[in-house]
Amino acid sequence: MSKVNVSELSVNTIRALAIDSVEHVQHGHLGMPLGSAPMGYKIYRDIMNYNPKNPDWINRDRFVLTSGHGSILQYVLLHLMGYDVTIDDLKSFRQLGSKTPGHPEVGYTPGVEATTGPLGQGISTVVGMAIAEEHLAAKYNKENYNVLDHYTYTICGDGDLMEGVAQEAMSLAGTLGLGKLVVLYDSNDISSDGPVSHANTEDVQKKYETMGWQTLLVEDGNDLEAISKAIEEAKADNERPTLIEVKTVIGYGSPNLQGTEQIHSDPIGTEEANLTKETYGWKYEAFEVPTEVAEDLKEVVTKGQKAEDEWNKLFDAYSEEYPELAKDLTDSFSGNVQIEAIDLEFKEDYIATRSASGMILNHIASKVPAIIGGSADLASSNKTTIADSTFMTKGDYSGSNIHFGVREFGMAGIINGIALHGGIKGYSGTFLIFSDYMRSAIRMSAVSKLPVTYVFTHDSFLLGPDGPTHQPIEHISSLRAMPNLTVIRPADANETKAAWEIAINSAETPTAILLGRHDVPVIQNASVEGVKKGAYVLSEAAGSEEGIIISTGSDVELALKAQKILEDKEINVRVVSMPSWELFEKQSNEYKETVLPSHLEKRLVVEMGSELGWRKYIGDKGESLTIDHFGESGNGDDLAKEFGFTPENISKRFMDLL
Amino acid sequence: MSKVNVSELSVNTIRALAIDSVEHVQHGHLGMPLGSAPMGYKIYRDIMNYNPKNPDWINRDRFVLTSGHGSILQYVLLHLMGYDVTIDDLKSFRQLGSKTPGHPEVGYTPGVEATTGPLGQGISTVVGMAIAEEHLAAKYNKENYNVLDHYTYTICGDGDLMEGVAQEAMSLAGTLGLGKLVVLYDSNDISSDGPVSHANTEDVQKKYETMGWQTLLVEDGNDLEAISKAIEEAKADNERPTLIEVKTVIGYGSPNLQGTEQIHSDPIGTEEANLTKETYGWKYEAFEVPTEVAEDLKEVVTKGQKAEDEWNKLFDAYSEEYPELAKDLTDSFSGNVQIEAIDLEFKEDYIATRSASGMILNHIASKVPAIIGGSADLASSNKTTIADSTFMTKGDYSGSNIHFGVREFGMAGIINGIALHGGIKGYSGTFLIFSDYMRSAIRMSAVSKLPVTYVFTHDSFLLGPDGPTHQPIEHISSLRAMPNLTVIRPADANETKAAWEIAINSAETPTAILLGRHDVPVIQNASVEGVKKGAYVLSEAAGSEEGIIISTGSDVELALKAQKILEDKEINVRVVSMPSWELFEKQSNEYKETVLPSHLEKRLVVEMGSELGWRKYIGDKGESLTIDHFGESGNGDDLAKEFGFTPENISKRFMDLL
Repeated sequence: MSKVNVSELSVNTIRALAIDSVEHVQHGHLGMPLGSAPMGYKIYRDIMNYNPKNPDWINRDRFVLTSGHGSILQYVLLHLMGYDVTIDDLKSFRQLGSKTPGHPEVGYTPGVEATTGPLGQGISTVVGMAIAEEHLAAKYNKENYNVLDHYTYTICGDGDLMEGVAQEAMSLAGTLGLGKLVVLYDSNDISSDGPVSHANTEDVQKKYETMGWQTLLVEDGNDLEAISKAIEEAKADNERPTLIEVKTVIGYGSPNLQGTEQIHSDPIGTEEANLTKETYGWKYEAFEVPTEVAEDLKEVVTKGQKAEDEWNKLFDAYSEEYPELAKDLTDSFSGNVQIEAIDLEFKEDYIATRSASGMILNHIASKVPAIIGGSADLASSNKTTIADSTFMTKGDYSGSNIHFGVREFGMAGIINGIALHGGIKGYSGTFLIFSDYMRSAIRMSAVSKLPVTYVFTHDSFLLGPDGPTHQPIEHISSLRAMPNLTVIRPADANETKAAWEIAINSAETPTAILLGRHDVPVIQNASVEGVKKGAYVLSEAAGSEEGIIISTGSDVELALKAQKILEDKEINVRVVSMPSWELFEKQSNEYKETVLPSHLEKRLVVEMGSELGWRKYIGDKGESLTIDHFGESGNGDDLAKEFGFTPENISKRFMDLL
Repeated sequence: MSKVNVSELSVNTIRALAIDSVEHVQHGHLGMPLGSAPMGYKIYRDIMNYNPKNPDWINRDRFVLTSGHGSILQYVLLHLMGYDVTIDDLKSFRQLGSKTPGHPEVGYTPGVEATTGPLGQGISTVVGMAIAEEHLAAKYNKENYNVLDHYTYTICGDGDLMEGVAQEAMSLAGTLGLGKLVVLYDSNDISSDGPVSHANTEDVQKKYETMGWQTLLVEDGNDLEAISKAIEEAKADNERPTLIEVKTVIGYGSPNLQGTEQIHSDPIGTEEANLTKETYGWKYEAFEVPTEVAEDLKEVVTKGQKAEDEWNKLFDAYSEEYPELAKDLTDSFSGNVQIEAIDLEFKEDYIATRSASGMILNHIASKVPAIIGGSADLASSNKTTIADSTFMTKGDYSGSNIHFGVREFGMAGIINGIALHGGIKGYSGTFLIFSDYMRSAIRMSAVSKLPVTYVFTHDSFLLGPDGPTHQPIEHISSLRAMPNLTVIRPADANETKAAWEIAINSAETPTAILLGRHDVPVIQNASVEGVKKGAYVLSEAAGSEEGIIISTGSDVELALKAQKILEDKEINVRVVSMPSWELFEKQSNEYKETVLPSHLEKRLVVEMGSELGWRKYIGDKGESLTIDHFGESGNGDDLAKEFGFTPENISKRFMDLL
């Protein structure tokens, strides 16, 4: 069989398998896979450098299916190329417990590099991966040793490019000139609600050029040669990322549904499925892979294995010549980068937790092989800059600092991509209030089990005059609501050390560190071990106990002062610092009981956030000094008085409980 | 004094007052106001059609300060132009209780049209305002009666244009060809972290052209004539929105700080303040307005009053010729649009709440003068299309439906702008999971007291195979965490009627309606009045009560089935439907006690969302059947079993309580 014929047959095999899988389970998106099969085939068959037998090879080219709803395309490709994805896996598409969930989920399927589905975010993911590659290459490659040297590919759709998160990430990618990033845009002119032109009439080719991208057009998405040529052209431009617009037909081949939104997301029925296969001239059984195709694709495995073998030799030689770098790189990729206790002493009487955080971050950066991050244009407020390093610029990616610009969502998505790439610890910074801008990316960190760090400063209304649009209220609790996210609100510099230690040593859980703008006392008996347990008795009652004041973050200072006021009135309470609910919930009931003994029913929580959820810890008899309305513009101290956050009012509120 | 000289003196007056205000309170952003004073002056002095003595005149030109941190610029302009903003108000800039908060807050200051500050969102606001104007014009204007005919202006900065929400809104504005929208881009090349070029090297002029905008450049931001000319050119293009890039110098005039990020956000000190005033040749006292300037600006009031008087005459004539339209328009603007009980009967045995919602929305649209909205490319899933109307297109804005494209955040921001414009009820739709994409705009609705409606469908993991990235878990509680947002999760079609009634009749609170994808029974005794009270006894216990099952949304069906199972075992419980915490919290203690009597301590909540906050209603002795981990891809029924959401398990869990 000629090479051309086997290519065409392979593309139709992909389409037929996609149809069979969707029809088999009567669920799933067919439109995208049928249209994009040729580019998917070309990338996986000929373009990418990877070894299906070792999906973890660190120098593999990365591929992310930004159009995650077209997951069956990727599963079929993985099956055909020799990954551990079987026909049975395809038959259990979208079923509970299968290897082939409705959208690609990292960790579920060998060869799936990223969880995708929420539109646009895959773009930020690949921008992050491309940044990671450039940074690691700058850091580890030596003459004759390009140990990190790969491309990053994605296929995205019309919907992805309409999302702001994609725009943010692409704008930064253009600015940084990420030449090894290739975005294939499955341009089929149809979205869920019909023609894309109803909602978007941009000149795509020209638009991305103005944003620093090379843009190319493939007029016929079935033209494998043209796709190939465009990708080669993309790779040849080292200074710009490339967007290849590939004109396709959604649901290609379906005589009655192609080119319409009706084939976007639902099975097409046996009759139309058969008609569609007829269009392809398909003569095989359901789930059958023609022998010629299977034979031809064996080369992918052979080629991949050879590529990895050669790289292994290269890396062995590199390890001899640069043993420390090699160890760092291996450790970083294996996730073995842990930090010991942070040996940093705070001698100041007062320091804002955000400032302490900046010092701790810089300390960590000197100990950990690769940590990169930055802020969404608030670096000087968030204290997120690593002083010993530079900022990444176009052409020089050695810097550990990134100017993300005012692009919170893009930033968080990019950090996720960096984490998915491997080899780097990533962090981002902004004001807590703007966690709302990036919330879906935070969730993506949590769903994808990425141990990234979110630095959120200005974590209460005490930030003052910027007013209600800048003062977080419900943010602490809405972050606590998210599964697999550790939220830590440290009371002082010492607790902040613990927060960072937890964040850096986390394996599968992102960490949000909530920090204050204003100076707070360094509490000498603040306990790193206590923070790791989520809550601990920071200050014991002076005598026979009448209750507990529970507090978090910078509000602990007020709780401690209130404790003294009460003590003067011969009312003895313990103060519990509770920086993290999630960590506390992981403790034994015995430990919990030592911190919050059942017999101490008089409990007052003090937190400059909403009351939601605190009832769990204060019980039916407890009370809360929290805030369930928006803030106001005004001096922080004035607001604290106005909203009742004074030691005097805290002590009064506790006395009311008695 | 010549016209030119008084103009220059006026611009310097603005700058001097801004400096005085910031220095007086030692707080606030000066960089933007000093650079943008000329364009601010030009817009307010000569361009805009408005009456400072009646900021509510419905046909006024709208102005929004997207660069909200530069609020003092707007306050100074409002003062000078004759709005009710005094020198004393300027002196209490950013103070608690003042009329001049740190960022513009709608409702605090006469003449402030929108709350701004969170970057980029002001752009979506003005796009919404421009859409509102076009729609109302298409709907109400008649030959010789252009009763709605105004422009919408904004000043934004570099940071705003980097935000995805701005990109989304601008892309739609270009698609819709909003010719009466004028964006002045204060292009000073500096953002908080330094030169914008560090993070953004886009060709702005060309970029927005590719997005359907007219783009113009004013090379010298101090050139009033050039600004004027550009705005005239902007207004002359009826088919495209216009972006005028005005090159400015941040902190213009400050000899030591201008052109750097150091003057972005902090007071500059007396010495530098004096030097800066010297640059302007300023010879007046602090807070002094030169007589010539005051005299000249009197014309603004005269002109404005005259314009409104003329319009009033026009509207009187219009009211005679088109009394019904005139009444509709007046009612709509005054917020007097209320709906009576929705007289729609559901005869079906089963109907998904999202489908019921679609029918109810269409019913409402036939009763309410102006209601517009749409979905972020999920209209057929969200059931948000008004069937009797068309979709808005470029040049024809009469349709009530908007194709927002896949732009959730932009959509929500635009709906906020529509609400701020007045005269229209706005709603948006997407999956509940994507509320995360637009969360900051939802918060902006709540902060700004905008009674918009959020339709969120697919509100639980029951949506099934799309998997964890599409299955909301923490979203119900994280929405409940937000102040001034009514969250309603109706159990059936009847409760959905109530939800819409509450949403449409709301005056100052946005409403999120959480709807299911799958069919649920129409519950005959589901009560509209009950929903209005937030919670009610949907099904009384058959005999002597042992406890309560509390549930919401589509999960109520399971609770009712569990009640029957328990009844068969002679365990009698009441079932409380609790669609809205916020509404329940507004009820009297007496009412609350009738629904959740204190003596019934055995309480089980059943909700397919996170447990966070439920302890408040179930108490120390209660239990929850909720979900605090991410979902999985799989069939909805399989997931329900896997996660324990079956009538059998509910009844078992209740028995465990006994």
